[in-house]
Amino acid sequence: MTQPKYQVIEQTLRARITDGTYPEGSIIPKEVDLAAEFAVSRPTIRQAIRILVNQGLLERKQHRGTLVRQSKIAQQFTHVIQSYNQEIAANGRCSRTDVLGLYTQLATPEVQQALHLPDDAQVYRLVRLRFADDEPVVLVTSYLPVTPLPGLDQVDFARQSLYTELEHRHLGITSVNRKLEVVAADPDTAASLQVAPGSPTFYFHTLGQVSDGRVLEYSIAQYRGDNNYFTFNIART
Amino acid sequence: MTQPKYQVIEQTLRARITDGTYPEGSIIPKEVDLAAEFAVSRPTIRQAIRILVNQGLLERKQHRGTLVRQSKIAQQFTHVIQSYNQEIAANGRCSRTDVLGLYTQLATPEVQQALHLPDDAQVYRLVRLRFADDEPVVLVTSYLPVTPLPGLDQVDFARQSLYTELEHRHLGITSVNRKLEVVAADPDTAASLQVAPGSPTFYFHTLGQVSDGRVLEYSIAQYRGDNNYFTFNIART
Repeated sequence: MTQPKYQVIEQTLRARITDGTYPEGSIIPKEVDLAAEFAVSRPTIRQAIRILVNQGLLERKQHRGTLVRQSKIAQQFTHVIQSYNQEIAANGRCSRTDVLGLYTQLATPEVQQALHLPDDAQVYRLVRLRFADDEPVVLVTSYLPVTPLPGLDQVDFARQSLYTELEHRHLGITSVNRKLEVVAADPDTAASLQVAPGSPTFYFHTLGQVSDGRVLEYSIAQYRGDNNYFTFNIART
Repeated sequence: MTQPKYQVIEQTLRARITDGTYPEGSIIPKEVDLAAEFAVSRPTIRQAIRILVNQGLLERKQHRGTLVRQSKIAQQFTHVIQSYNQEIAANGRCSRTDVLGLYTQLATPEVQQALHLPDDAQVYRLVRLRFADDEPVVLVTSYLPVTPLPGLDQVDFARQSLYTELEHRHLGITSVNRKLEVVAADPDTAASLQVAPGSPTFYFHTLGQVSDGRVLEYSIAQYRGDNNYFTFNIART
């Protein structure tokens, strides 16, 4: 059993993207030329390219050919809580936040459970769409209890980060618990993130605790799969 | 601006699944009954259910209705390298590994780069499909250099774990560097994992180092999105 040809070609093309043989923003050679180079059929080339398109390394452009995408944004599991703006800046990109909604509502059963709230509790619902260089990166929906945080809905979260605001109120988040899933984007989320419905996304649930152990933040963050990746290091024990 | 009705219903149904009101393996109430309960139209109910299906909490069964799926497998970012069998056992499931391929080949440019090998280096290519309770969970393709590991292709990796085998050779992996992406499953991978092509998957690249710093393992692991999630805790610094 040998490795299928399309996989070998996929790996070769990937290496050429990684080592800069095909630079970011460039158009790669035509299918017919790649087929000649690798001595395979065009469907085999197409299969290899499709995988790299799925992985966000290449992008098909009508009338132009196949483009090498800008690198994905490296998000680090550095075991520290970095702000979104810091992460994006570390990638040499410009960050921006649009506030899509900020209002109070009765906590739904899910939010009640997460924040340990009584039945009739009011919560803030803050929805932010965050960009890097004007490309949507992540849609974040956060729930916070109203009682200990009066007037939170008066804050301009396009300019002020949520974590900084909580610190100013002496209620800074000191530890977070995260759960990561992968989910196909539903039509509304896909429209916000400017991807096709059904595109794979990272789906994080976050519970943020303040130093006395109270859970003050419940957030759902959905990252585009095609412009983000996460790295981490693990030492064996 | 209030929260869309389908989202409130989605969250309510999610809470009922989490708290056991709708137990694992049970059929949830019919669309028409849920529509009556929430005083909304059936398309609104369908939209809420579609999200939970996408997230792997519910599953549509022909002629039977909508089923509450078995919980996803909790994979921990515990900052330790746990074996697959340990992870699955910790979830109270039975693990099994099928070896789909094990042979030597010339390193592709991608593998050469990852393992820091010269042009003509030979590598092992080990492909394993791993199950929990007879359901495919992850497809792992591992590359290892042939030179320091003679006869590795004679090992029965259905019974022996790769990391244990390396330890027996005094070449145990002591630290790993991982990169996580989300990728839509290509048709071949989808067939192995028994999901629909295009289903979202976790896509890990792993570089495993031995204690002297040599990279001895390059692996690509693709986890099904519908039966896995990852949890981790971060303390703020």
